[in-house]
Amino acid sequence: MASQDELKETFVSEETRYTGKVFTVRERMVELPNGKQVVRELVYHHGAAAVVPVDADGTVTLVRQYRVAHDQVMLEIPAGKLDSASEDPLECARRELEEETGLKAKNMTFLTHMAPTPGYDTEFVDIYLATELTEGRASPDEDEFLQVERMPLTEAAERVMHGELSDAKTAVGLLMAARLLC
Amino acid sequence: MASQDELKETFVSEETRYTGKVFTVRERMVELPNGKQVVRELVYHHGAAAVVPVDADGTVTLVRQYRVAHDQVMLEIPAGKLDSASEDPLECARRELEEETGLKAKNMTFLTHMAPTPGYDTEFVDIYLATELTEGRASPDEDEFLQVERMPLTEAAERVMHGELSDAKTAVGLLMAARLLC
Repeated sequence: MASQDELKETFVSEETRYTGKVFTVRERMVELPNGKQVVRELVYHHGAAAVVPVDADGTVTLVRQYRVAHDQVMLEIPAGKLDSASEDPLECARRELEEETGLKAKNMTFLTHMAPTPGYDTEFVDIYLATELTEGRASPDEDEFLQVERMPLTEAAERVMHGELSDAKTAVGLLMAARLLC
Repeated sequence: MASQDELKETFVSEETRYTGKVFTVRERMVELPNGKQVVRELVYHHGAAAVVPVDADGTVTLVRQYRVAHDQVMLEIPAGKLDSASEDPLECARRELEEETGLKAKNMTFLTHMAPTPGYDTEFVDIYLATELTEGRASPDEDEFLQVERMPLTEAAERVMHGELSDAKTAVGLLMAARLLC
């Protein structure tokens, strides 16, 4: 196999084109391995954390929420954005789990550091398996509208296999958890 | 369970803030279920298609490429952007498979319509399982630098489980294929 260095693009310059609250857009000029210069459009995002919470009896807790980007209500594992690039994803995962579902986990196992959109977006989503759960009170953000839904992990994994749960972090988290636990 | 309509956000207005070649950014004002108006930052993207190509002997073909967003070489299933919002994802999947790896597939099975980033990006990636493969000649785009790598599907799925293959479409495609075939 040829060296991976033969694939690398080199930074030339970068310009910010949009600054939002959730993400920033920059155009980066890079030099390709063939010496040609091209522009890469990049979304800069702090990252996020997500949790697959599985009870002792094999029940997984999911959240239903409206996603304006797809104009549909989607069933997803609990998740949220990091407050800043320096926030510990594990802390974020615990906070989002409790806010969205009321669940607290004694045990959080790291599953993967997922790149949802590596072609043009810097976001990573750290996904955890949460077990040894205790129930508390959910406290979603004032402007966050959610419905909690529970089902057996085996059923959730089958719903991924039938293309019914299309969110990437949810599909990855549920299929990984099912491979580990079922 | 409460009605899903209770979760829905209503369109108020929208403004384009950035227009690129790969994606566009718009700020959409929506009305929340509580009547409050908030701005949603949205990336508009045509969508993409991806393929898990598995030989008769259970070998999967992956591609290594540099991803500027993560400044790393990543190992992914063959994939590419739709030429336009109206392109058939199946045609796109066949084209990208052949361009990137030289493989042609007699059989393409739809796996899922994956939403990589439903929180702020309209992109969907349609993922297919390609079988009954024949070898041809790869013809990557002039500015596309790739290395093809083959391994048993069982090993690829284990590498997802160990967090080594972090690209979302790759993790979803490989875990779904492994559940179907292994």
